[in-house]
Amino acid sequence: MSKIITSAILIIGNEILNGSVQDANGYFLAKELANIGIIVKQIRIIADDENEIITNIHQLKDSYDYIFSTGGIGPTHDDITIESVAKAFDLELEMHQETVVALTEYYNAIQAPSGRLKSALKMAYLPKDAKLIYNPISRAPGFIVENIYVMPGVPSIMQAMFDNLKHSLIGGDLIEIRSSEVHLGESLIAKDFALLQKNYLDVEMGSYPFIKENKWCTKLVLRSSNIPALEQAFSDLKSIISNYE
Amino acid sequence: MSKIITSAILIIGNEILNGSVQDANGYFLAKELANIGIIVKQIRIIADDENEIITNIHQLKDSYDYIFSTGGIGPTHDDITIESVAKAFDLELEMHQETVVALTEYYNAIQAPSGRLKSALKMAYLPKDAKLIYNPISRAPGFIVENIYVMPGVPSIMQAMFDNLKHSLIGGDLIEIRSSEVHLGESLIAKDFALLQKNYLDVEMGSYPFIKENKWCTKLVLRSSNIPALEQAFSDLKSIISNYE
Repeated sequence: MSKIITSAILIIGNEILNGSVQDANGYFLAKELANIGIIVKQIRIIADDENEIITNIHQLKDSYDYIFSTGGIGPTHDDITIESVAKAFDLELEMHQETVVALTEYYNAIQAPSGRLKSALKMAYLPKDAKLIYNPISRAPGFIVENIYVMPGVPSIMQAMFDNLKHSLIGGDLIEIRSSEVHLGESLIAKDFALLQKNYLDVEMGSYPFIKENKWCTKLVLRSSNIPALEQAFSDLKSIISNYE
Repeated sequence: MSKIITSAILIIGNEILNGSVQDANGYFLAKELANIGIIVKQIRIIADDENEIITNIHQLKDSYDYIFSTGGIGPTHDDITIESVAKAFDLELEMHQETVVALTEYYNAIQAPSGRLKSALKMAYLPKDAKLIYNPISRAPGFIVENIYVMPGVPSIMQAMFDNLKHSLIGGDLIEIRSSEVHLGESLIAKDFALLQKNYLDVEMGSYPFIKENKWCTKLVLRSSNIPALEQAFSDLKSIISNYE
């Protein structure tokens, strides 16, 4: 029996929508989740806007096993993810004492002026009974409510948090990949590749054209959790390719 | 009177969801659209799956002025965007003679084997009455149906297409940006920055922390189409920053 575990990634950040920065978190999470057998069905990038955050959480939370969000949990006025997630689940915010202690230790250790700690304590107001996600760098935690994992947007901190977290996630069947790059335009191999797909219905086959030294090339990618079928399909693919070379 | 024009970007591609490649098209389009006064309200990355494509088009098309899609319009069996868009709008596919001629010229010019042109002609079956988007590189066109602009996933081709296309798009008010990078943790400036935001409600203010040489720094970004307010707010911001330096 195959075990399918699905997720959506929700990237919250005006700076990405207005083209100021390229998102790196979606790519990082997509790779990491693939490695532990969690299929990403959708990535959404939305604004730092309460209605948008609430609407999107409501649309996604019942459709997938996991939701991973990044962004908007810092100390400034434009960080509104924490309050918005609380509203989406109809939860009160409460001061988490454990986080107050952690933030106080951290800001004392870096000898921050007292005004800085005071503002930072905004990050200790978290939804009631939320489970915390440990932040080994700057101590302001992420948190879990139901099936949504709320993490910050700064990539180095999000990645450190996810590294701590990933062992607790339950993945499904691992999908393996076999791929081959050929110096052929994809339209040349299209017909044979479509026939191959018909012969192996539980192997997902994708064709990705790219241009190298002014010539069309194609990356042919096979993915499946059925390893014997994957190996057989890949062997057939190599025979097909050899006919063109 | 301010003129607001909105859009969503729909990236179609399994290879991005499974972490094989990082999307580049969303970032390119977000930057380009910002430059012509079209606000990106949402970016969605979805699978090469007919139901997903149709559902997402239906969800997005009435909410925004423009929808820009990339991916899935090539010649192989895993490219299903064209048929899916046609179904989403209940349109028949028809052979576009002008595209048949263009593809025949192109594949003759690169001396492709005849089987290649035959497969490539799949890309000439387009929704009835669709308006074509010119492809200066490999001639297989993008197309427009109602308010959705359908483009390929290969970044160089998508970008060339968009360069031809953008002059025909109608933008709204141009938003200008003023920003300042400070060697301060964002929590230190959070309180003053929130007060500044309250004083300038039509200037959007964002704070983006980053780590440089092991120290916390912050990029403070002001955005508005009200240029006098933007300049005044930025001048006030510089005064605030000077208090900390």
